[in-house]
Amino acid sequence: MTEEHQDKPLQLNLATEIPMPGEAGWRFAQASLQAVDVADQLTALLNAEEISACLDLLPLVRRTEIFDYLPDGMQEEVAAVSDLESLMELLEELPADSAADLFNLLSSEQQADLLRDLPARNRATLQHLSQYPVATAGALMTSEISLLPRGINVQRALEILRRTAAGSETIYHTYIVDPRHRLVGVVSLRDLILATPLASLDQLMTEELVTILPDQHQEEALRLISHYDLLALPVVDENQRLLGIVTYDDAMDVAEEEATEDIHRGASIVPLEDGLLRTSLFNLFRSRVVWLILLIFANLVSGVGIAFFEDTISAKVALVFFLPLLIGSGGNAGAQASTLMVRGLAVGDVGLGDWARLLGRELLVAGALGLTMAIAVSPIGMFRGGLDIALVVGLSMVAIVLFGSLLGMSLPFLLHRLKWDPATASTPLVTTLADAGGVVTYFALATWLLGLH
Amino acid sequence: MTEEHQDKPLQLNLATEIPMPGEAGWRFAQASLQAVDVADQLTALLNAEEISACLDLLPLVRRTEIFDYLPDGMQEEVAAVSDLESLMELLEELPADSAADLFNLLSSEQQADLLRDLPARNRATLQHLSQYPVATAGALMTSEISLLPRGINVQRALEILRRTAAGSETIYHTYIVDPRHRLVGVVSLRDLILATPLASLDQLMTEELVTILPDQHQEEALRLISHYDLLALPVVDENQRLLGIVTYDDAMDVAEEEATEDIHRGASIVPLEDGLLRTSLFNLFRSRVVWLILLIFANLVSGVGIAFFEDTISAKVALVFFLPLLIGSGGNAGAQASTLMVRGLAVGDVGLGDWARLLGRELLVAGALGLTMAIAVSPIGMFRGGLDIALVVGLSMVAIVLFGSLLGMSLPFLLHRLKWDPATASTPLVTTLADAGGVVTYFALATWLLGLH
Repeated sequence: MTEEHQDKPLQLNLATEIPMPGEAGWRFAQASLQAVDVADQLTALLNAEEISACLDLLPLVRRTEIFDYLPDGMQEEVAAVSDLESLMELLEELPADSAADLFNLLSSEQQADLLRDLPARNRATLQHLSQYPVATAGALMTSEISLLPRGINVQRALEILRRTAAGSETIYHTYIVDPRHRLVGVVSLRDLILATPLASLDQLMTEELVTILPDQHQEEALRLISHYDLLALPVVDENQRLLGIVTYDDAMDVAEEEATEDIHRGASIVPLEDGLLRTSLFNLFRSRVVWLILLIFANLVSGVGIAFFEDTISAKVALVFFLPLLIGSGGNAGAQASTLMVRGLAVGDVGLGDWARLLGRELLVAGALGLTMAIAVSPIGMFRGGLDIALVVGLSMVAIVLFGSLLGMSLPFLLHRLKWDPATASTPLVTTLADAGGVVTYFALATWLLGLH
Repeated sequence: MTEEHQDKPLQLNLATEIPMPGEAGWRFAQASLQAVDVADQLTALLNAEEISACLDLLPLVRRTEIFDYLPDGMQEEVAAVSDLESLMELLEELPADSAADLFNLLSSEQQADLLRDLPARNRATLQHLSQYPVATAGALMTSEISLLPRGINVQRALEILRRTAAGSETIYHTYIVDPRHRLVGVVSLRDLILATPLASLDQLMTEELVTILPDQHQEEALRLISHYDLLALPVVDENQRLLGIVTYDDAMDVAEEEATEDIHRGASIVPLEDGLLRTSLFNLFRSRVVWLILLIFANLVSGVGIAFFEDTISAKVALVFFLPLLIGSGGNAGAQASTLMVRGLAVGDVGLGDWARLLGRELLVAGALGLTMAIAVSPIGMFRGGLDIALVVGLSMVAIVLFGSLLGMSLPFLLHRLKWDPATASTPLVTTLADAGGVVTYFALATWLLGLH
């Protein structure tokens, strides 16, 4: 995903002409640059106090836009050094979902102060939106939706939309609710524009709606938006009452975030909450150390296997030459198999029901891989130790690749079945387990075939 | 990304009531189910001939919708067994970008036949869109855009939009072009609806546009759409003439596809073009075997290292007990470091310029990790071989974890610098190289500290 990336081009161009806060030409915070780029710049170049000081120089709308694009960690730091008044302005101006996110980042003192001083309407929205746990559809949604009642005509609908557009995150899809605020349909602005002014909204609207509950995971919201190519996904409670919508751009952010989490888990890293450069050294250490220590003890199994065959090794020290190669191959084949399964399960490409079929396929593919690799490695065995070593190494290769692959493909299914995240079947875990199996297989075959016991 | 996934729920519910083609209740291909779900069902349950027969029973609009959601491989197979007439209907009804994709999947005979018989306008569009290589912005774009000339007022603009809406993929953003078809601005339907009828389009439109060239990679299109939260990204040639647009839903598909590619590359798998279950066994074998064989030879380095220290091993066979544990730890730490860097580079979180800073951070984190792991493993060394073995194992651990981590973090940067995909610094490659370094470090330290030479 990277060759095409330019490396923060704006940073390179602007780094030489960043004015200090208060200086005359505060050019790059002005309208000519996109807010998201300004936010990236500020985060890369300044600390929280400086960013706060810069933002205070800008008009409220622009300040809010830029603040909205700062990373969560930086929002938290900037908020911590901001005074109550500018926080209040921010909370009122931000889209409701971003305001709720910001509110959740504040200290409990700041929260209490703000709730006391905020207008009643904003307070209710904030409390409503900030009640859902992170990474749920509820935490992701905005409540700034354009709504229409049933039974009106297109002309009236367009009038209402024009009046309420300013407070809505999108008006391209408008939701139709009954008097008890239950969701009954959706109409696109496209259809409204194309219909005759007196057409009935009830006939124009689509009643078959994909919806989500507020406590469902954000991954499910992403899956639905991506699967059905939605612009927005309505969030409803158990009584079908409309609580908010999740928009496609939030879903795209979730997609990146969740892919990163899966990739980190796949390398036995506890997912980071922030960017690599913004994570503290201690948190980086902590995210990596737990699994590394656990894997040391898993690796002891291989050591015990070796200790058990110490006599075999003493009798034929040349066998150790092939140890890294054989157990490495099992680990690599296992890593491939588990990666294919974990990703297949993650994108919904394979399901639990496909296990038997995938096992059959893996047997054939891994068998062919093992044979090919045995053929590749046998001449080296021949050269280093003669026919009997070549035979031991070749046979071990087939067995080890088969074992690693079947382990790699089955572990994610097992974890999925146990309702664990299959990505926990990380490459290092599979590799380590495959290593242990490889050690035992290799030395057992050697002991037996070479008559070394 | 998976715990929340339901396993193809519709398939489970409907599998018992799938009617045969031609049977009366062809319910599930009717409007009550979303086209994308029907496409998934058909792909899971029927072969290409059967799908083709089913589709022929449906009205053209529905048939096209469903066909558009079939996976590329299945589209190719269905097209291969379809007659020219129904292909022609499909090509005329499909959105222009999907039609171009389908056209590229056809045999050259079918292509020639179709180009002869298609209406001139469609033929020109097809040839225009199918000229760009796969995975470029040009291949992803659609040419069905709503366009407006400069200088008109809002009322006139809305009239034009109403007339042309049917042929446009989206009317929420409309592009304004000059008489030479050069892109001069964009206006949102929201702004048009909110403006007074006589307001001038030129004053309403935004002139600062993010655009892309048709031969740029689809990842760059994705990055721009995601970074700037765009609904659509205009594709222009070097003279700023508008060629088409890439829409957010296509970008979401690209996001999933590219994340899968990166994840597969990270496990030394040549990325698959199709789903796991739809890839032939031979292609699965081929996607995995190349790197496995290459890694065998990389692993030989470790073998040679061991052969070099055969006397050390013979003198102290107990050392082999710690071999898997030590080289495994180096590989695991290296896999973590490379995964963090590859993903950081992929999402633009870190750039080439951050190398020195990241190296410093990695030195500190890896040093701390190595020390912690040395402390964890030393008691085992003590227990198995006494103080001198504990010392050798502990020191080796620090050195090996540092080596693996620095290798893992540097390799992606090096590849990025050489304009290779950093994901090629896959976990198996880093692990294998770290293994070789670990073997040499361990036995060299042992030989020296234990005086075994």
